[in-house]
Amino acid sequence: MIKNIKINYGDAVRDLQTLIRQPSVSAKNQGMVECANLVAQIMLNAGIDTKLLYLSNNDKYTEAEEEDNNSSNIPSPPATQPPGLLSLPPPIVYGEVKSKSNPNGKTILFYNHYDVQPIEPIELWDKNPFSGNIEGNYIFGRGAADDKGELIARIKALEYYIKKTNDVPCNVKFVVEGEEEIGSVHLKEYISLYKEKFKCDGVIWESGFVDTRGRPIISLGQKGILSIEIVSKGPCRDAHSSLAVLIENPAWSLVRLLNTLRDNNGKILIENWYNEVRDFTDEEISLIEKEPFDEDALKKEYSVSSFISNAKGIEVKKAFAGMPTCNISGLVSGYVGEGSKTVLPSITIARLDFRLVPDMVPQIQFERLKKHIRKYWLSKSNNDNNNTTIEIRLLGAEPAARTSINHPFVNIIKEAAVEVYGDAIINVSSAGTGPMYYFNKLLGVPSVCIGGTDIPNRLHSPNEYMRIDLLNKTIKCMVVILEKFAFSC
Amino acid sequence: MIKNIKINYGDAVRDLQTLIRQPSVSAKNQGMVECANLVAQIMLNAGIDTKLLYLSNNDKYTEAEEEDNNSSNIPSPPATQPPGLLSLPPPIVYGEVKSKSNPNGKTILFYNHYDVQPIEPIELWDKNPFSGNIEGNYIFGRGAADDKGELIARIKALEYYIKKTNDVPCNVKFVVEGEEEIGSVHLKEYISLYKEKFKCDGVIWESGFVDTRGRPIISLGQKGILSIEIVSKGPCRDAHSSLAVLIENPAWSLVRLLNTLRDNNGKILIENWYNEVRDFTDEEISLIEKEPFDEDALKKEYSVSSFISNAKGIEVKKAFAGMPTCNISGLVSGYVGEGSKTVLPSITIARLDFRLVPDMVPQIQFERLKKHIRKYWLSKSNNDNNNTTIEIRLLGAEPAARTSINHPFVNIIKEAAVEVYGDAIINVSSAGTGPMYYFNKLLGVPSVCIGGTDIPNRLHSPNEYMRIDLLNKTIKCMVVILEKFAFSC
Repeated sequence: MIKNIKINYGDAVRDLQTLIRQPSVSAKNQGMVECANLVAQIMLNAGIDTKLLYLSNNDKYTEAEEEDNNSSNIPSPPATQPPGLLSLPPPIVYGEVKSKSNPNGKTILFYNHYDVQPIEPIELWDKNPFSGNIEGNYIFGRGAADDKGELIARIKALEYYIKKTNDVPCNVKFVVEGEEEIGSVHLKEYISLYKEKFKCDGVIWESGFVDTRGRPIISLGQKGILSIEIVSKGPCRDAHSSLAVLIENPAWSLVRLLNTLRDNNGKILIENWYNEVRDFTDEEISLIEKEPFDEDALKKEYSVSSFISNAKGIEVKKAFAGMPTCNISGLVSGYVGEGSKTVLPSITIARLDFRLVPDMVPQIQFERLKKHIRKYWLSKSNNDNNNTTIEIRLLGAEPAARTSINHPFVNIIKEAAVEVYGDAIINVSSAGTGPMYYFNKLLGVPSVCIGGTDIPNRLHSPNEYMRIDLLNKTIKCMVVILEKFAFSC
Repeated sequence: MIKNIKINYGDAVRDLQTLIRQPSVSAKNQGMVECANLVAQIMLNAGIDTKLLYLSNNDKYTEAEEEDNNSSNIPSPPATQPPGLLSLPPPIVYGEVKSKSNPNGKTILFYNHYDVQPIEPIELWDKNPFSGNIEGNYIFGRGAADDKGELIARIKALEYYIKKTNDVPCNVKFVVEGEEEIGSVHLKEYISLYKEKFKCDGVIWESGFVDTRGRPIISLGQKGILSIEIVSKGPCRDAHSSLAVLIENPAWSLVRLLNTLRDNNGKILIENWYNEVRDFTDEEISLIEKEPFDEDALKKEYSVSSFISNAKGIEVKKAFAGMPTCNISGLVSGYVGEGSKTVLPSITIARLDFRLVPDMVPQIQFERLKKHIRKYWLSKSNNDNNNTTIEIRLLGAEPAARTSINHPFVNIIKEAAVEVYGDAIINVSSAGTGPMYYFNKLLGVPSVCIGGTDIPNRLHSPNEYMRIDLLNKTIKCMVVILEKFAFSC
């Protein structure tokens, strides 16, 4: 074990600036391969065995299962995407360092991403979003925290260890994807394809927050999601609204249908919706009770005077960690532009996202939703079925994931965090969604979020930043995690 | 009375072509004054005493009440809008012919408009929309029927009479406005301002249809309208939809509110909404019974298999003529573009139009709507009021109008129509809306629609046309109307 960790943090700041200056907006396919190559170069420089992984077009498993034990230590990553693969998703930057002293020991996997959110609205940025400019303790730019800052912290922890000891205390893998900001659309496929390569004993998740009192929030779960679109169709073309006396308006049909899905306390009214919802364990409840949650700050941020169902205290925290939702994310029909238009619209569209919790299965929930709609639609009291048709489309689905608070991996992370930060908060689950389930399920390992992103963060917003002191602390924390993980067996 | 009416119809076609070739799109303020001048010139050439009327800026009544008995017979209309009035609405082309033989007799007023709908979508026109090209029995172009064709028919009827007899059988007035296609926004003001000038005993409305069997439909009424916007506001900015577990979504609040306004049989659930609805008289019912209505053609046109409440036969016709509606003309919230966005929208907007019937008062109905929303919003079972605010905006309002079928004016028109067309249909009210109420109420006179627009018309659509045979028949019908009207006292 290394005593007196003294890291050259300057390197981390410079490498993070370099990485921010390479745009990599997955939503616009902007600079993706360039950024993957840059990440690979930084990883190679750190002493990590690195390659770019692709989903092969025709024979998926040919390249994937090829043994790479004999690959050279520092291979050149391809300068551009291989020919014939131009229509493939962005590559995963894969890195590996085997422990010489402990080659049959455990393996930790860092999951990160090199893609960033779009920069819009650009007019709200004080500086060029890809400048990586430093002001005092802050590095500004798109991706500064999410997720280039977190990624650099992990690479630098490895680099420190390798340079200091010419070894690592445990086996380490990196999976750095390029589609996290567009829903990790191919990650499940990547994990299935490279299951052997990604084999590990625990995953350190790409994100992690530090609260306003400097305590890292170690989060153990993510909600799942079911995203759907409902299209209600009435007359075959827009009609003059004088015909509304005879022809049913698909907007009315949709309003009535939507109204059957959820009550005004947020309860979802679809039959059996909550059947598989896993109750919190007593231990989880007591953790949730301890978790800080600044209700007033959240209310103030969004100018709301109370929460749904007037929830307070423990109810707010339980809802955040483990309550399913049914949210209208989009609605459109007819005309709401300048002036007014007396139109009876031909079509009305609603988009909804349902947050799911363990152990809800997205496909089963989708079937329940369809059954609910079918039943409602065909019910005797409903005459919408006469003239309106309803179509339901699945837009996306990810199951929820939650690592047990009793898993030894969680304790290792917590101990490391307390050692570096003096304190740490365990969060049973985030309210957001990510592809954690695929790691937990396909690789059969626990995943834990820990990172250095300031809580009043501007992730996905203008003037995103990374705090340099937190970047440094995160590097240190990752070093301690590596050591504690290695010596925990 | 003129026997053997022989009109030089060629003049009518040429003048209509000239008028079509002058664009006059009120929505874009395109060619309005130019078209008003052209109409005035055609009216002057026909022997009609013509001037352009404006709404004066400062002293409304100075110009309006000025006596124009001494005006020269053929005044030059102003070449452009008078200086200082540039921001005023388009002028009304006002025309007058006094009967020499019967100066103290009755006065008939023709209400028409010289503005037209926009030509979009322009790619669906087979020819230049302002070409006025003739193919066989058809004159094509924007405004060919609505309303330049109808206007020319009336002017030509007058011209024929004046040239033939050097007189007219009754006093005649023309009110030709330039804002009909944008909701006659200043017509009420014009009528109030020029009430004395517009004094008459009956109004021939700007539009009128001839059915597929060649029978003119004499329509006696128009529904009113109340157009509103409801804005539901939630969090002060769009939030990530993971927060939907705590923060209420204004789209949900609006869906619930909308759902309280109308049931799935089209019934409006607002308290007292139907209080003033005037029942059909027995005579109206028996007229409605006789009225032809091609249910199958309408269903086929819009690909619907049945009507609201499964209405059939007399119920369809009663609904069309006299049932109020509540229609959603626009809905918007969040995001329904490419991909999906997990957003909890800050704002949701609905536009609604309510068709009104005699004797509903738009302002009273608006108050009832507001009261309904207030009551619902503050009800104990509703907790939307905690975090969502609702704003209601009035976008437009016009009362309904219906001329009594017993009014002698109606009988005169019908007799003339039967004489020219061999048959005629009396329609108690159109399902659409127009400013008929202001003539009926402010001038205290009956209004009747009769015209020559082919029923499979393309009003407001590409390839609008006027049938030359119907144009000619309409001119003849107007001549007969003038005579019957003159000699009816």
